[in-house]
Amino acid sequence: MENLQIDQHISRQFNADLEHLREHLLEMGGLVEEQVADAVRAIETADSGLAEKVLRTEEDIDSLEVSLDEECTLVLARRQPAASDLRLVLMVTKANRDLERMGDEADKIARMAIALNDAGGAISPRGFVELRHIANSVQALVNQALDAFARYDVQTAMKVVKGDTLVDRDYGSAMRELMTYMMEDPRSITRVMNIIWALRSLERIGDHARNIAEHVIYLVHAMDVRHTSVGEIEAQLEEHGHKPS
Amino acid sequence: MENLQIDQHISRQFNADLEHLREHLLEMGGLVEEQVADAVRAIETADSGLAEKVLRTEEDIDSLEVSLDEECTLVLARRQPAASDLRLVLMVTKANRDLERMGDEADKIARMAIALNDAGGAISPRGFVELRHIANSVQALVNQALDAFARYDVQTAMKVVKGDTLVDRDYGSAMRELMTYMMEDPRSITRVMNIIWALRSLERIGDHARNIAEHVIYLVHAMDVRHTSVGEIEAQLEEHGHKPS
Repeated sequence: MENLQIDQHISRQFNADLEHLREHLLEMGGLVEEQVADAVRAIETADSGLAEKVLRTEEDIDSLEVSLDEECTLVLARRQPAASDLRLVLMVTKANRDLERMGDEADKIARMAIALNDAGGAISPRGFVELRHIANSVQALVNQALDAFARYDVQTAMKVVKGDTLVDRDYGSAMRELMTYMMEDPRSITRVMNIIWALRSLERIGDHARNIAEHVIYLVHAMDVRHTSVGEIEAQLEEHGHKPS
Repeated sequence: MENLQIDQHISRQFNADLEHLREHLLEMGGLVEEQVADAVRAIETADSGLAEKVLRTEEDIDSLEVSLDEECTLVLARRQPAASDLRLVLMVTKANRDLERMGDEADKIARMAIALNDAGGAISPRGFVELRHIANSVQALVNQALDAFARYDVQTAMKVVKGDTLVDRDYGSAMRELMTYMMEDPRSITRVMNIIWALRSLERIGDHARNIAEHVIYLVHAMDVRHTSVGEIEAQLEEHGHKPS
C-alpha cells in the first residue's frame, strides 16, 4: 500500500527525462538478467556456444552503461533535479554500475564454462549441485532487485537484502565442500577451481543485487542503509511506518 | 604543463564545498592506502594483531563513504554545479565507491592473514614471492591513482591504466603457479587457497585504482574511457593534445 503511494507521489514529479532514465535502467537490468541466466546455463550444460554469446553481449552492456551514465549527467546538468528526483538520478547512476558489474561477473562465469568444457566438464559432476543451488538463489535475487526498483517496493528490496545473507552462508559452505573435493582428488583441482571462480562470481552478483535493493530503499525513504545489518535496517524502516516483514 | 593549467582553471571555480569534497576524498584515499599496506604487511608477516586493526578500521572507511556521499548529494542539491564542477562531484561519488571497495578487499586480505596465521602460515613460504610482487605493484597503483587525482594529472592516470594491465598479467601467471603448488602438494591446498584469495583481492584493488585513474581522465577531459583499451585511450588523449607517454 504505502509503496503504491510513494510510486504515485514520485510519478507526478517525473518528466520524460526521468522516465527515460528509469526505463533504460530496467532495460539494462533485463539484459543483465539474461546474461546471468545464459552464463549459468552455459556452465551447467558445458555449452561453449552459449558462453561465447554471453561474451559478445557483454560489449552491449558496457555501451549501455556508458550511455546511461551520460544521460544521468545530462539530466543533472540541464534539469538540476532536487529531492526525490535527485535521488532517482543518483540511484540510477549507482544501480547502472552495479548492473554493469553483474554483467562482468556473468562474463567471468561464461569464461569458466568454456574452460570447464575444454577440460571435459560434464564428466565429473562434483560441485555442480552447489553451483545450481546458489545460481538459482542468486538469479531470484537479481529478479527481485529489479522488481523492487520497477515498483519502488521496499518490502521486496528487504527480501533481497535478507536473501543475500543466505546466499553468503550457502557460498561459505559450498566453498568448504569444494576444498574437500580438491584434497580428496587433487587431479580435480583445475576443474574444481573453475567451479570455485564461477561460485565466487555468483556470490558477487548477489552482492550487487543487494546493492540495488539498498539503492531502492534510499530512493524511497532517503535512508542510506549500506553497511547496515538486516536488523538495523528493519528498525529504521519501522520508524518510517513499515511493518516488519 | 597542461595539467597545471587545468588544475588552476578548475581551482578558480571551486568554492569551499567543492574543495571539501576533494579533501575528503583524498583523506579517505590516504586511509584506504594505509589499510591496504597494513593488510599486506599482516599477511606477509602472519601478524594477526595488525590484521585485527585492519578489520576495526574498515568500519571507519564505511562511515566515511556514507558521509562523503551525503556531502556530494548536498552539493548537487544546493549548488547545482555544471560542467567541470559537476564532473568533479560525480567523479568524487564514483571514486568514493572505488575506495570503499578497496577497503573491503583490504578487509578480506586481513581475514586471510588471520586464517594463514591459524594454519601456521610462516612455515611454508610457497606463494609468498608472487604475493609480495603483486602487492608491491598494486600499492604503487593505488598511490599513483590518488596522486593523479590530487594533481589532475592525466599522465600519471595513464600510468595506472597501463600498470593495471601488467598486474592482471602477473596475477594470471601467479594463479597458474599456485595451482601447480596445490597439485604437487595437496596438503597445502587450504593454505594456498588463502594466498589465492588474497591475490584475487589485490587484483581487484588494482582494478579499482584503474577506475579512479579513468575517473581522473573523465574529470580533466570529459572523456569516458571505461571499457576502452590502452591504445584507444592514448589515441583519444592525443586528440586532446597529450603527447604519447
